[in-house]
Amino acid sequence: MVQSHGLAYSRTRQVTVRKPTPSERHRLVDAAMGRVPVDLLIDNVRLVNVFSGEIYPAEIGIVGGFVAYVLDGVTTEDKPAYPAAQSHIDGGGALAVPGFIDSHVHIESSMLTPANFARIVIPRGTTTVVTDPHEIANVMGIRGVEFMLEAGRNLPMYQFALAPSCVPAVPELESSGADFGRDEMARMLKLPGILGVAEVMDYKGVLKNSPRMSEILDLAIEEEAFIQGHFFGDDPRELAGYLCGGPHSNHEFMTGKEALSAVRAGMTVDARDSSFTRDIAAIVGGLEGLKSPRNLTLCTDDRHPGEIRDAGHMDDCLRTALAAGLDPVEAIRAVSINTAVLYGLKRLGAIAPGYVANINLVDNLENFDVQQVFFEGMRVAGSGQLHVEIKTAESTRVNTIEIENTVYLENFSEDRLLIPAPIDEGEVDIRVIRHLNEQTALTELTVEKVQVRGGHVSLDGRPDLNYIAIFNRHKGNSNFSVGLVSNFQLPDGALAGTVSHDSHNLALVYANTRDAVRAVNEVMRIGGGTAFVRGDELKSLALPVAGLMSRLSAEQLIPEVESMNKALKMAGLQADHPVMHLATIALPVIPSVKITDQGLVDTEKQVFLDLFP
Amino acid sequence: MVQSHGLAYSRTRQVTVRKPTPSERHRLVDAAMGRVPVDLLIDNVRLVNVFSGEIYPAEIGIVGGFVAYVLDGVTTEDKPAYPAAQSHIDGGGALAVPGFIDSHVHIESSMLTPANFARIVIPRGTTTVVTDPHEIANVMGIRGVEFMLEAGRNLPMYQFALAPSCVPAVPELESSGADFGRDEMARMLKLPGILGVAEVMDYKGVLKNSPRMSEILDLAIEEEAFIQGHFFGDDPRELAGYLCGGPHSNHEFMTGKEALSAVRAGMTVDARDSSFTRDIAAIVGGLEGLKSPRNLTLCTDDRHPGEIRDAGHMDDCLRTALAAGLDPVEAIRAVSINTAVLYGLKRLGAIAPGYVANINLVDNLENFDVQQVFFEGMRVAGSGQLHVEIKTAESTRVNTIEIENTVYLENFSEDRLLIPAPIDEGEVDIRVIRHLNEQTALTELTVEKVQVRGGHVSLDGRPDLNYIAIFNRHKGNSNFSVGLVSNFQLPDGALAGTVSHDSHNLALVYANTRDAVRAVNEVMRIGGGTAFVRGDELKSLALPVAGLMSRLSAEQLIPEVESMNKALKMAGLQADHPVMHLATIALPVIPSVKITDQGLVDTEKQVFLDLFP
Repeated sequence: MVQSHGLAYSRTRQVTVRKPTPSERHRLVDAAMGRVPVDLLIDNVRLVNVFSGEIYPAEIGIVGGFVAYVLDGVTTEDKPAYPAAQSHIDGGGALAVPGFIDSHVHIESSMLTPANFARIVIPRGTTTVVTDPHEIANVMGIRGVEFMLEAGRNLPMYQFALAPSCVPAVPELESSGADFGRDEMARMLKLPGILGVAEVMDYKGVLKNSPRMSEILDLAIEEEAFIQGHFFGDDPRELAGYLCGGPHSNHEFMTGKEALSAVRAGMTVDARDSSFTRDIAAIVGGLEGLKSPRNLTLCTDDRHPGEIRDAGHMDDCLRTALAAGLDPVEAIRAVSINTAVLYGLKRLGAIAPGYVANINLVDNLENFDVQQVFFEGMRVAGSGQLHVEIKTAESTRVNTIEIENTVYLENFSEDRLLIPAPIDEGEVDIRVIRHLNEQTALTELTVEKVQVRGGHVSLDGRPDLNYIAIFNRHKGNSNFSVGLVSNFQLPDGALAGTVSHDSHNLALVYANTRDAVRAVNEVMRIGGGTAFVRGDELKSLALPVAGLMSRLSAEQLIPEVESMNKALKMAGLQADHPVMHLATIALPVIPSVKITDQGLVDTEKQVFLDLFP
Repeated sequence: MVQSHGLAYSRTRQVTVRKPTPSERHRLVDAAMGRVPVDLLIDNVRLVNVFSGEIYPAEIGIVGGFVAYVLDGVTTEDKPAYPAAQSHIDGGGALAVPGFIDSHVHIESSMLTPANFARIVIPRGTTTVVTDPHEIANVMGIRGVEFMLEAGRNLPMYQFALAPSCVPAVPELESSGADFGRDEMARMLKLPGILGVAEVMDYKGVLKNSPRMSEILDLAIEEEAFIQGHFFGDDPRELAGYLCGGPHSNHEFMTGKEALSAVRAGMTVDARDSSFTRDIAAIVGGLEGLKSPRNLTLCTDDRHPGEIRDAGHMDDCLRTALAAGLDPVEAIRAVSINTAVLYGLKRLGAIAPGYVANINLVDNLENFDVQQVFFEGMRVAGSGQLHVEIKTAESTRVNTIEIENTVYLENFSEDRLLIPAPIDEGEVDIRVIRHLNEQTALTELTVEKVQVRGGHVSLDGRPDLNYIAIFNRHKGNSNFSVGLVSNFQLPDGALAGTVSHDSHNLALVYANTRDAVRAVNEVMRIGGGTAFVRGDELKSLALPVAGLMSRLSAEQLIPEVESMNKALKMAGLQADHPVMHLATIALPVIPSVKITDQGLVDTEKQVFLDLFP
């Protein structure tokens, strides 16, 4: 069973956790009873037992994809006799823990395809992810969800998905490539690999019993589907109201107080360390002293590929949780049995007879370095390296979608980049989106006096201001809007991109229209992604898969992302991840003012604002 | 919402845990947000929070059948304002705990119908039971299972069922009224109210991959159905083998060592205190020091009505667990959230927003006296008394089956009660079932010399021996067998009964054939049950519902059972529950020798024995 480096991984399409066939079940029983040898024996390990809460020396017998038996290695005197195993691995005293489960992740945020995502997270010990393909759903609708499910199969890890519930995020204020209601949700809930409803972001809609949220939630409750939440704060009425509305979990808590309120209320807290916010330490602090809350999981939400390479994935979340003082058994439970129970994933989340043999060997509780990774009983990674070859998908649908150009910009023309003013010449008040600072997506509304030349707003002499335009880039939709942003820190040139949460329209920030046209043309040429133009300088990052993901491996992509970020920093953008700055300018659920393809939005009041007050 | 004494309970048929309708969900959200008042506020309680593991003062707002909010009553300064509730109950400082869930019970063992069982256990705080209708299934097949499901609906408690997996218990050695294989299991798993597969008693069949167990287990795994176990001991190979075979749980553990092995192996331990064996204290002792094992539940398995009246039901199990030193939060978890998670019962097992409002108020952790019981937000019992009227079932099927006579004894005649000997006159060796003592169902095989008169075995001058006969009492089956039993302690008369595990054939122990004929006639007359005849003395206990249950209430039935037991003790039977002695004589899974409708059985070797060696 031990695979040599480079062996191709291939088996039946994973749409559920692996189940033993009748003959596999017979062989498992035979091996457990000692009538036939196990395929693989892993001995000399210390088992973290997520059931009993103990850590003790053990030996693990594996048959096919499953654990046949776990022997307590201490009490050797009454150790039952077993025939010699087919193969054997000495764990060298390592901790044996269940393969890690990420309770909430958007693979699109890694800019990697599902297969390339697998290649980089598996060596970190992540053997199961519960994804929300919300981003691609906004671009491609249910086809995008099906693509992610299909591309996530035949991998040496499980990639399950939840059905995106809020597409677009705020239907009255923006247009994306799809519009999901009850019918779409009903269709998606029947797709193999879908575990329930993904994060119900429109939490205000839930609290006010909005028609869209009601039709989706009532359907989910009728079908007893799991409903993932997306909630902010610790207001006791809103917390109770949201839970009464249907969602079960939340990954947006940022303080220990919020997390404690939620745990008490029975909401599962998916404690998150993403590339944008690290909340695990605070949450662990807030839950100190509780008696083994079962409703705690860890997740990554959104992680850039560079961060996965440098800091890690679920192993990094665990290190953070342990350093923050979480009991080691509780920390392991939060990435295994708790998450498996939350999603009803049978045979996952523990190392025990009959469970799927997803097992990590970890050096110790301090470094928490994942030494070896087993998936369905196969050694798939070791010492940070993948040990199996992940083949390119053979599915026609996967290959077709990966090369499909999703950037439709028939509505784009240079003359639309200028802002028509209500006067021909002179000075006028205009509403401006002001970025608070480079570390946040938060904005505030300001009103500025600007010059008008020939009937259009002019930014001559105003390096503090930039134009901003959002062009709907989805087929058959010609919406666009244009406005001004301040403190974006782009004194010259133009930045265009198709990663623009959550509708993923084309977002464009520019100091002049000539560079803007070239940036947009470059984005169209590369089939989506990001382009920066300043005079003769042109720098782009191709994300041709739905305009969100690259087809490159992490090793190839990370230097390109870094090079792009460097160029943007040179151009004046000071954010840690300058590209992400552009990506949130059109997100109408973030305070206080944003711009969508339909116009300037007061995101607190959820209403449009006229550009000229 | 508070119901006055005697109000009839009636609502939509409960085939699943109650789900909010769209309008109920809206009203719940509105109430949680403080926009409308709750129906009922229970305040001045100390909440046992099964999520956080804490116990703290709280207030519980209820709307319809659900919890709308739970307020932490300590921090009054930031307590949100809510409109005054429609009604209000002062908890008087009581503990508020989730309604108790019994993880494994045979209602038939109470000799009460599902409705009468409900009447006696609800005041004890049991609001949900997961039953195994194994007994009635052996008599009536799937019709019996459907009857129990249907009779268990429209009650102010949940009675869910598992599908009996071993009917008959040992197919090669006995005949019952049904024979379940893969097809029957497939049909039952589709019945509303069925949560999975009931106790897989044929554990040896599982360990040797027997065809019958394989076809049932492979089906259950294919359908991802829950599989309840039935396992003995702590042999590591057998434990692993059984878990690899499919079952998830077990209620047969009797020692702390067994329970610890099982918890470590991921098997759920359903710790049991039944009328026959009390295992909870030992199991709690064996799990001492573990960090909050989730795979522990409590159950009653088989309880006589008198014991429920005198000692209690799940409240009694909890008192035992607490007295044995189980942490109070863990004890409450073992009758609530642990059990709900085991069976996938959403919205049950906790007092939290959106959960079904099944709530008990309990005086304190020492007495653990259940003061008030709420089911789906309705006060259904208080101070040990039922507060709602449970109406007779309106279902035609329920009424038809309750009065159906299931005792078919066309094969019975007096001449069959004598044992034909291989000689006409003289002395002969004969195999005899020897009861070890009056407290156990265990037996051993002995060989005795007996007299033969006119070609038949004679017991003249042998008051230590009794005849024993088993007549198949199911339609279309004329099997019968006859033999001898010693140490049964029936010096005179005859005892006949239709409660005879698990095939529930007619079991008959007698000193002479004249009394035996009268006892059998009486059992036929009353439609099943138990009859004792000694000369002119005739005492019977009618159990006309499938020959297993009475239609009387517990209050009416208990004195009859007591009177019957008293008469049997006067006749010489010294067991605590003399009727049960008869009930296990034909059970071919109990060591060492039993007699079925097909003959004398060596239950260790699972083979028939000739009567004359």
